[in-house]
Amino acid sequence: MNREALIEATKRQMPEKRFKHVMGVVETAVSLAERFGGDVDRAWLAALLHDYAKAWPIERMERVIREEGLPAELLEHDKELWHAHVGAWAVRQEHGIDDEAVLDAIRYHTSGREGMTQLDVIVCLADYMEPGRDFPGVNKIRKLAEHKLEEALVAGFDSTILHLVDKGRRIFPLTVLARNDLLRQIEHRRQESAHI
Amino acid sequence: MNREALIEATKRQMPEKRFKHVMGVVETAVSLAERFGGDVDRAWLAALLHDYAKAWPIERMERVIREEGLPAELLEHDKELWHAHVGAWAVRQEHGIDDEAVLDAIRYHTSGREGMTQLDVIVCLADYMEPGRDFPGVNKIRKLAEHKLEEALVAGFDSTILHLVDKGRRIFPLTVLARNDLLRQIEHRRQESAHI
Repeated sequence: MNREALIEATKRQMPEKRFKHVMGVVETAVSLAERFGGDVDRAWLAALLHDYAKAWPIERMERVIREEGLPAELLEHDKELWHAHVGAWAVRQEHGIDDEAVLDAIRYHTSGREGMTQLDVIVCLADYMEPGRDFPGVNKIRKLAEHKLEEALVAGFDSTILHLVDKGRRIFPLTVLARNDLLRQIEHRRQESAHI
Repeated sequence: MNREALIEATKRQMPEKRFKHVMGVVETAVSLAERFGGDVDRAWLAALLHDYAKAWPIERMERVIREEGLPAELLEHDKELWHAHVGAWAVRQEHGIDDEAVLDAIRYHTSGREGMTQLDVIVCLADYMEPGRDFPGVNKIRKLAEHKLEEALVAGFDSTILHLVDKGRRIFPLTVLARNDLLRQIEHRRQESAHI
């Protein structure tokens, strides 16, 4: 795998502003992986490719979902989720990426999912808090991420949920499942450490 | 069915304060059914019985779920949801209530569900806004309920979701599915009326 070529290919998929965001996510994901003992190479790769199909026309995403054997139920879900699954398909197709851990981190970076891996959490969290992000609550997320990976992502999901409630928009059920699962893990860890 | 006997039996299941809440829900559900052309008798019955098992000891609820053929997955869900399903079982068992529409309105009054019936919505909404309720946002819900049933329940669910996020607690996935579904219905109706 040629890193420079992958960076160039990614850059070609999107406007300059989106690419700047992607490189912010790469920087943040790598630093989170280092901080929490994660897999730095996979964090780099998944972060670089997470928005690969984000700027593709919606019709192109729909065609890929219909014709390339992606789960048909995706079409019933919110369109904002499409680019993540289509992106995972595209980087396998175009660059031979076949590491399922990396592909899953790409697939679930927008919604999260129940049973998130550490890599999933890192990419999803980096997407919330990369240096270019600016929204109510982002500094709380960054602060938490100094020490607590799961707590920081819960705060990220909270910000999304509050925003969607405020706007009267639908909430991804997967995000709620992911958040509930992280809360269970946090609670479990607290109980364990109380018993030491 | 003897209404007085049912009221007395319900009263015996719970402390005075809870029973007062129940009678508030009855009053509100009946008035919502009248306002929106719903089934007043069913609204009365489902509202009266919605919290039938609410004050039962948690061990009794667990025993019913395990031994009486209720969905075992309930045990993995939050305990706050148990009383609704156990209540539906109890009123069938003890009072021969076998109207599935009424039983469903009891079962889903706490969480909501995808594809809520008008009766489900009325009981769930009445539970949010009965005269004894006092929480941030309750007046907005009451105001909306003067004209818009689904919008009012979305506001109810919003208040629950905001509260749970604020407290760092888990959100019922069914509530999010119910809210998303109501938002879809509202949107659909808006588009239809725009075409008239």
